[in-house]
Amino acid sequence: MKNRGLVLLAHGARDPEWAEPFVRIRAAVAAQRPDVIVELAYLGTMSPRLAAAIDAMAASGVTEVTVAPLLMAQGGHLKEDVPRLLAEAQRRHPRLRLNLLPAVGEVDAILSAMAEWLVGSVPRAGSEEP
Amino acid sequence: MKNRGLVLLAHGARDPEWAEPFVRIRAAVAAQRPDVIVELAYLGTMSPRLAAAIDAMAASGVTEVTVAPLLMAQGGHLKEDVPRLLAEAQRRHPRLRLNLLPAVGEVDAILSAMAEWLVGSVPRAGSEEP
Repeated sequence: MKNRGLVLLAHGARDPEWAEPFVRIRAAVAAQRPDVIVELAYLGTMSPRLAAAIDAMAASGVTEVTVAPLLMAQGGHLKEDVPRLLAEAQRRHPRLRLNLLPAVGEVDAILSAMAEWLVGSVPRAGSEEP
Repeated sequence: MKNRGLVLLAHGARDPEWAEPFVRIRAAVAAQRPDVIVELAYLGTMSPRLAAAIDAMAASGVTEVTVAPLLMAQGGHLKEDVPRLLAEAQRRHPRLRLNLLPAVGEVDAILSAMAEWLVGSVPRAGSEEP
């Protein structure tokens, strides 16, 4: 039985296509960690919400849930909403271990990947077509 | 004179600390591309807004501006707001070349960096402390 869970927490948007990158990340992580239940959850209008995702994992026997906010930066969501939602989940599931990862913009390897992509995305002088 | 510009376009938030990852990315890119003017701009409440950033670059002699949306995914902002803002900027600066990059979640190398980080962020069975 899988007793570890990873919730990829995204902001959410009205447009269902918005979730596509998160669906891809979920599949990539799940493929490399078959020992972990990996699910998406959203802060906004999309389903499931964070609370429902954690409750479902707890109901399926998961004993440790890591929440990874796929948000660029640490704003009101990460300083207020997410800690409150996690505290509420902890009260509902007192024996569940809950870990919160930083925003992706706080992770050096991801910042470096973004910077590298940007450095290569601006044409260099003399490289334009004739 | 630098005649290429790169605008890193972030969502913005009420909390000024929110912008810190973007400040770091800007510095990293600017250090590696001294031939390019690299500036931050925001869609929301922070300054400068996208229009002001493009206008300032045009005024300083930039002839080609690349706009890189540092947004996780392609939602309403990238489908509606940003194209409208770029079309308006093009009308104000008819000879300026304007390029729009995809959202970071559409970039394979960045998705891979996120997936790799997530794969390594969940403790493996048997690795917990005694």
